[in-house]
Amino acid sequence: MTASGEDSLIARYFKPIATDPGAFSLDDDAALLKAMGADIVVTTDAIVEGVHFLSGDPPETIARKALRVNLSDLAAKGAAPAGFVLTLALRAADDAWLRPFAAALGDDAKSYACPLLGGDTVSTPGPLTISITAFGRVPANKVVHRSGAQRGDRVVVTGTIGDAVLGLDILKGGAVASALAGDDAALQLLVGRYRVPQPRNALAAVIRAHASAAMDVSDGLAGDLTKLCAASGVSAAIHAPGIPLSRPAATLVANRTVGIDRLITGGDDYEILCTIPDAEFEAFARDARKAGVAVTAIGAVIAGNAIPSFLDAHGRELALKRRSWSHF
Amino acid sequence: MTASGEDSLIARYFKPIATDPGAFSLDDDAALLKAMGADIVVTTDAIVEGVHFLSGDPPETIARKALRVNLSDLAAKGAAPAGFVLTLALRAADDAWLRPFAAALGDDAKSYACPLLGGDTVSTPGPLTISITAFGRVPANKVVHRSGAQRGDRVVVTGTIGDAVLGLDILKGGAVASALAGDDAALQLLVGRYRVPQPRNALAAVIRAHASAAMDVSDGLAGDLTKLCAASGVSAAIHAPGIPLSRPAATLVANRTVGIDRLITGGDDYEILCTIPDAEFEAFARDARKAGVAVTAIGAVIAGNAIPSFLDAHGRELALKRRSWSHF
Repeated sequence: MTASGEDSLIARYFKPIATDPGAFSLDDDAALLKAMGADIVVTTDAIVEGVHFLSGDPPETIARKALRVNLSDLAAKGAAPAGFVLTLALRAADDAWLRPFAAALGDDAKSYACPLLGGDTVSTPGPLTISITAFGRVPANKVVHRSGAQRGDRVVVTGTIGDAVLGLDILKGGAVASALAGDDAALQLLVGRYRVPQPRNALAAVIRAHASAAMDVSDGLAGDLTKLCAASGVSAAIHAPGIPLSRPAATLVANRTVGIDRLITGGDDYEILCTIPDAEFEAFARDARKAGVAVTAIGAVIAGNAIPSFLDAHGRELALKRRSWSHF
Repeated sequence: MTASGEDSLIARYFKPIATDPGAFSLDDDAALLKAMGADIVVTTDAIVEGVHFLSGDPPETIARKALRVNLSDLAAKGAAPAGFVLTLALRAADDAWLRPFAAALGDDAKSYACPLLGGDTVSTPGPLTISITAFGRVPANKVVHRSGAQRGDRVVVTGTIGDAVLGLDILKGGAVASALAGDDAALQLLVGRYRVPQPRNALAAVIRAHASAAMDVSDGLAGDLTKLCAASGVSAAIHAPGIPLSRPAATLVANRTVGIDRLITGGDDYEILCTIPDAEFEAFARDARKAGVAVTAIGAVIAGNAIPSFLDAHGRELALKRRSWSHF
């Protein structure tokens, strides 16, 4: 029996990584997801060549980014990964590209215990587009929303903020590239942060246990905090110098290559932004340490419906021209 | 608070149709799907401008097709629709296009009880691409596979086969368009079948009750039957003159404008192909009638691993050059 090109592509590259019984070896029209008594959390994020990743990015990092931007949403909702489906819109079935893409995707699926359940491969004359829908399980009625933040809660972020936008600047040959010329470790760190997010799935259970609200930071901290506050009907005051920065990012801010405003509006961080009731904060910080995830309190939830303010070391409000990345 | 263009687009067009409580009004990072004790069936299908629909197709029909190709998979698996997420890759946020697109999508979501749960809207320099992942609920361990067909089972299809490929030919100004010139009812019927599939969700419970195997016919009957037989480890013999055709399709075959081979290899039918144990067939046919879905037995499952054969009125095997549509 001669398989069609599409079937043979799927057989060669994706069947080997679709080992979950619910994937039916990709031989059926649909996959099966057992809820196992949990609620199913569903998230979907697409990445487009030239928009979310660059044409020259390696297939391995594109695969990892496509999955991880979705894993990041599951983490922020307090859900454990349960699986994903993949839609791949390709110009051509290029083995040299597909082999490393599928291998890296399979690697990540294994590391994050998030099996490939199914997908669709279509041809497109346009840019490579990868759309993933990921599923997580969360105990019934325990999903963490954006809308639960209360006045007095601490505002917390994981990891460091702003690295990815600097990495993108480097890949585009911008001012950051010249400022860091020769510092290979810094260049690699920032580019790596743009290409391969580090979703904080290790923190999911801790978020579920302690956070009043949470979301992932994908479109820029300033804009995403604005969304969280709007959903919760509150405002927030952030101490900008307290925002955690990587060593290279801190250096670039110190020598005025970039302003802090750029770091908090750039997007692609895939860190978790959450609010923690003050009385829970110590327990939260302890549990986060146990989970191996760095967390930093950067401000407080306040009453009102004003746009959250970011204050500098002198207590002056930063003027932010644009709060977040938008496609349109 | 000024919303970004992307947020405002979502607020204007998609919030009004995301009325399910699990969608959280599209104000969160993820949606919630309650399994309610069922297994969750997951299917994903993307449609690309210029590949699965034409640039000139109305936004309403594009919306309906995007959702319905997924509903068709749920029906074939015996699942009741539970919801869907949408990824829309757009060149621009064009209100005149988005308004009717979202309205038609909302209509179909309501008619098929398949609520919009979430999505992602991204910009693309390439063709409009719509990727939908749909969910269904099926009683635990009752999903219908491709792999259960047994020797002696009847091979059955719903509706009529081959209309969509004729509709596409008409839209492209091919020979079918000239052959049917003046017969507006026929032209409209065939174009409608290409643009707006009629998924057989009314038959899902009947499939679950009686079918040994099932799938939807999306890439052409011949190729899809080949897949079902391969998954089941059987072969099949089909009486080609018994394949149900619409009046216009039958006329075009009778006057030799097209051959039956074109109709069974063209794809885009979105009918259900299933196998029914002979002893179940009467009960199946009765239940299908009650559900209001036309079903036709077209052949039998036979032993062996030969490619299924399609026999003409004289018992001669049809030579099929290409069994199904493939993207690559």
